Amino acid sequence: MTRTLEFYFDYGSPYSYLADTQVEAIAQRTGATLARKPMLLGGVFKSTGNHSPAEMPQKSAWSGFDMPMWARHYSVPFQRNPFFPINTLALMRGAAAAQIDGSFERYHPAIFKAMWIDGRNLNDIKEVAAVLMGAGLDPQEFGNRIQEQDVKDRLKATTDEAVARGVFGAPTSFVDGRMFFGNDRLPFVELALKGALP
Amino acid sequence: MTRTLEFYFDYGSPYSYLADTQVEAIAQRTGATLARKPMLLGGVFKSTGNHSPAEMPQKSAWSGFDMPMWARHYSVPFQRNPFFPINTLALMRGAAAAQIDGSFERYHPAIFKAMWIDGRNLNDIKEVAAVLMGAGLDPQEFGNRIQEQDVKDRLKATTDEAVARGVFGAPTSFVDGRMFFGNDRLPFVELALKGALP
Repeated sequence: MTRTLEFYFDYGSPYSYLADTQVEAIAQRTGATLARKPMLLGGVFKSTGNHSPAEMPQKSAWSGFDMPMWARHYSVPFQRNPFFPINTLALMRGAAAAQIDGSFERYHPAIFKAMWIDGRNLNDIKEVAAVLMGAGLDPQEFGNRIQEQDVKDRLKATTDEAVARGVFGAPTSFVDGRMFFGNDRLPFVELALKGALP
Repeated sequence: MTRTLEFYFDYGSPYSYLADTQVEAIAQRTGATLARKPMLLGGVFKSTGNHSPAEMPQKSAWSGFDMPMWARHYSVPFQRNPFFPINTLALMRGAAAAQIDGSFERYHPAIFKAMWIDGRNLNDIKEVAAVLMGAGLDPQEFGNRIQEQDVKDRLKATTDEAVARGVFGAPTSFVDGRMFFGNDRLPFVELALKGALP
C-alpha cells in the first residue's frame, strides 16, 4: 500500500520552509507519495482564532534561536526574513496556479528560497517578479493568473479543507487521516508512513 | 565540566508531565545535574500575554492525539485529566515547600501521577490530601506550609525568574543559558548537555 504524505504549508511560515526541506526525503525513504498543499495561513488563523506565533515577543525571541538550530540540524541554509510580516496571498495563489498549470516544481523552491534563504522583500511585486524570472517563470502571466477565479477558488478550497480537517497552523502533515502539527513532528510523520507510529 | 539541565514545569501541563518522565534519564546519560524548577504557568501566561493551548479547540483536539502518541513513544502511562482546568497554585506552592523542606522526591512524582496517570480531581482538597497520604506526606502540614510566606515567595521568585529569562510556556528547559521550549525539544536539550548542539 502506498501512503500519501499530505503537507499543508504557507510560504510565510519559517517552520514550513524548514519542514519542506525534509518532506521529499521522507517520502523517498518511506516509498510514500508527497502531496504539497498550499494554504493561506492567514485564512486558517482567521477561521480558528489562532494567531501567528511571531505576535508574542517572547516566542518570537525564542524562535530566533530555535529556527536556525533546526536549519543547522537539517544542514540547510536559513535566515529570518527582515521584511516580515509579508502578505502571502499573492504567493499562495501563485502556488495554486503553478499546481494547476504544471510549473510548481520551478515556482515552489524559488519562493521558499527567496523568503527564507535570501531574505527578499516579497511584499514588493518587483522583487517577486525578479524571483520568478530567476526561476524561468513569466511575472506577467503570474500577475494575470493569480487574479483568475479557478486559482482563487483552488487556494480557498485547500484552505477550507485544511480548516475542516482541524488544521490551526503551519506546517501541518497528514498520514492516513492522522494530523501532525509542526516541523517538529516530522519524525512521527515518517514513522506513520512506515506504519510504525507509536 | 558538569552541565545543569534546568527544567521549568507546572503540574497542570501535560507536556510537562511527558517531559518530566524523561529528564532524569537525559541527565544521567549526559552526566548532567538536573534542577527541577516549579513555576506557576498561569503566572507566566499572565506576564507574557500567552494563553493555554487548551483554550483553542482545534489545538486541544489535536493534542488529544499528540499527547498519547508521545506517551506511547516514551512507554509511559498517560491519560488526559477529565477535571480540567485545574488550578495549580496550591500544588505548585506545595512543590516549592517540598523543595525547601526536603520532601520533593516523594511529593513530585505523586502529584504528576495523580494528575496525568490517575486522572484525579486535584481541584478537590480532599483528593489532594488522599494523594499526599498515599505518598507518605502529611496533608495538614501541606495545608499549613503552602500559606507561609517563604513558600509563596519561592514560587513567585521562580516564576518571575522564568519570565525574566524569556519563558512563555511549559515545559521549558535551559542548558548553559540556552532556552528550549517544549517536550519536543528534549532531543536538542540532550545534545546541548553533551556539548553537541547543532
